[in-house]
Amino acid sequence: VSVKLTARVLPRGFRYAGMHCGIKKSARFDLGWIVADAPCAAAGVFTTNRIKAAPVVLSQAHVRRAASRMRAVVVNSGNANCATGPDGMQASRSTAAAAARLLGCQPEQILICSTGVIGVPLPVDRIVGALPRLLPQLARDPSSYESLAKSILTTDTQVKCAAANCRIGGHTVRLLGCAKGSGMIHPQMATMLAFVTTDAAVPAGILQRALREVTARTFNVITVDGDTSTNDTVLAFASGASGAPTVRGASGSAYRGFVAALETVCRDLALAIVEDGEGASHLVEIQVRGAASDSDANRIATTIAHSPLVKTAVAGADPNWGRILAAAGRSGAKLDPDRVEVWFGGVRMYGRPRGGGASRPLPFDEVDAHQRLLAKRVGIAVDLQKGRGQARAWTCDFTARYIEINASYRT
Amino acid sequence: VSVKLTARVLPRGFRYAGMHCGIKKSARFDLGWIVADAPCAAAGVFTTNRIKAAPVVLSQAHVRRAASRMRAVVVNSGNANCATGPDGMQASRSTAAAAARLLGCQPEQILICSTGVIGVPLPVDRIVGALPRLLPQLARDPSSYESLAKSILTTDTQVKCAAANCRIGGHTVRLLGCAKGSGMIHPQMATMLAFVTTDAAVPAGILQRALREVTARTFNVITVDGDTSTNDTVLAFASGASGAPTVRGASGSAYRGFVAALETVCRDLALAIVEDGEGASHLVEIQVRGAASDSDANRIATTIAHSPLVKTAVAGADPNWGRILAAAGRSGAKLDPDRVEVWFGGVRMYGRPRGGGASRPLPFDEVDAHQRLLAKRVGIAVDLQKGRGQARAWTCDFTARYIEINASYRT
Repeated sequence: VSVKLTARVLPRGFRYAGMHCGIKKSARFDLGWIVADAPCAAAGVFTTNRIKAAPVVLSQAHVRRAASRMRAVVVNSGNANCATGPDGMQASRSTAAAAARLLGCQPEQILICSTGVIGVPLPVDRIVGALPRLLPQLARDPSSYESLAKSILTTDTQVKCAAANCRIGGHTVRLLGCAKGSGMIHPQMATMLAFVTTDAAVPAGILQRALREVTARTFNVITVDGDTSTNDTVLAFASGASGAPTVRGASGSAYRGFVAALETVCRDLALAIVEDGEGASHLVEIQVRGAASDSDANRIATTIAHSPLVKTAVAGADPNWGRILAAAGRSGAKLDPDRVEVWFGGVRMYGRPRGGGASRPLPFDEVDAHQRLLAKRVGIAVDLQKGRGQARAWTCDFTARYIEINASYRT
Repeated sequence: VSVKLTARVLPRGFRYAGMHCGIKKSARFDLGWIVADAPCAAAGVFTTNRIKAAPVVLSQAHVRRAASRMRAVVVNSGNANCATGPDGMQASRSTAAAAARLLGCQPEQILICSTGVIGVPLPVDRIVGALPRLLPQLARDPSSYESLAKSILTTDTQVKCAAANCRIGGHTVRLLGCAKGSGMIHPQMATMLAFVTTDAAVPAGILQRALREVTARTFNVITVDGDTSTNDTVLAFASGASGAPTVRGASGSAYRGFVAALETVCRDLALAIVEDGEGASHLVEIQVRGAASDSDANRIATTIAHSPLVKTAVAGADPNWGRILAAAGRSGAKLDPDRVEVWFGGVRMYGRPRGGGASRPLPFDEVDAHQRLLAKRVGIAVDLQKGRGQARAWTCDFTARYIEINASYRT
């Protein structure tokens, strides 16, 4: 999924940097910075968890006040700065103030993100002390972007970047995103951290609408373990530096083209997160169609995506399709057991027989099905034969490695 | 948790038997039978999954029609007879008809339960062929009851039985239950299979009310993996053979005493299921208090109980209390982050400091906390300091063994 980082994919109007400032014990990067050359439009979608990390609370306030003149986002990994009491909020404020001083702007023009362990005081002095050293490293080049993308990782095993282009008014605009996330990943809110920069000219209100729309179809329909993070944040920044005309309404072809490109970036990042899910060895795509409504289809797709029994069956390449049907049945969506059809690994395993009549188990070749489920990408499809509702969701399989990673996360 | 099976704990008016009839490949027992000496009162709570196994559909209809004159339940393990099409319903009907012929009653006086793999045709001829051989083995003695309790197991590693007594009108009445369940266990419905017999005299309507009330506080607040089975069934049978007077209203002390005894049996069985959860090495009790309402407390308790991150932290004895707080935050319940308090393994790890002010991480001894979390039973408590709502839930930890068991369940 990851894009090759070249000078061509970098949107104009932004500089990037990443470094090790001392939050992580190892020498891995833990501090990143995206800076807009001039005040730009910004949009954000944040966690729905009622326990919100201090940087989430602060960034939400800053987006509300300064969405049209944002300058930067400072992000650290290795510490979520969540459930850290009043000191935690002070730490996020100090970071914003320090970055604003260095860039010559107001603190509310700075967004803050943190990711890592919950409930441990953030050593904010290391961040504030490192920013002056990070400032001269800011650049618009592939290696700087890669440093940024590295600086946000926690249990991720690889950097996650995605890019897309679209044409607006005869000009090419670029979109580039990076994301982190591997555990505590759950749909129905903005998931994990992701940053998208673009040189399209998109007013903040339109950018926010586009980001929300796209998030619902990408980040919000992935799951690794069903746990919603306290720090989930997706941010988008639009510099307008491409020279393309401004995207005005939310109905024209310019908007639709931009949304399609944004969706490409966000979907690629979302799939990269699932593919790198803690301990994952398979990416699973779930398609539901024929539901009474899109929301019913969504409920079924995400319930299947959450099912530990479906996820362990995929881990074992076991064509145990009954678990898929059982998950659909407990989703709360309307469903007629006599009409449902189930495909697993591309093989129709349950459905109405050719001669008609109620759905039933269909004969299939066990060895062939097992072989298909050994593929890196596994498809699950459910057709309710009831209405026109449809939805897609993505998940990874559930392996013993997930347990190993999470039984001793802090130690 | 399991009770010692002696002649003293066996309710009067019932006989039991279990055997191997050939559904499981190994020689393990797979067919059980409970027979009332005379028509008795019965009550049932069934799965809320919209995909219901054939025996669930049939038993629900039989309870509706014949709750006051039930004679028996026939149960098989090794095959759930679910998603098996029209043949599946025919198989359950044939079983009821065969048992009714042998007992000289109507088929609607027989309940049917099945548990095991989904979507595989039930070899019903083996059940129908075995019942005449099982009939002479029916007896009211501890070894017959143990045979029954064995015959319902699937991935369970041990037999689960629980007993209680209460006094009604100067008479002792006995309650005895057995259960199976180890995976596909999820609250908010009747979970797994459980059978309770009693020699109390309780009309079917009152018995149904008592069973529903008790299920909500026991079987419905446990979880192993969050997957709701298609075959979940809890049945209670009351013979009246104790000679105790009939429990008439649902408000008197006789009813309250009976409900308390029924709750003891159901809670012991529910905890036995969690303790024997697939791969489990710890039993976790979650207590929530100070919530705005009992339903808010319940939402938080069950969300914590479901969290794979909390469950893997317990597996690793890692005092990572931030995951508990994050789960509470995403539960949907009202919660003030500045007032919440969190205990893990009996240690207060997050809360308001002695001098006052907002909740924050509290210093604790890591080594001591790790030691406490190595105990077989681990407590989690959350106090919202908001209202008087409270709830309890139980779960087990999440270990690599769960994955092993479920990655190759059918093979």
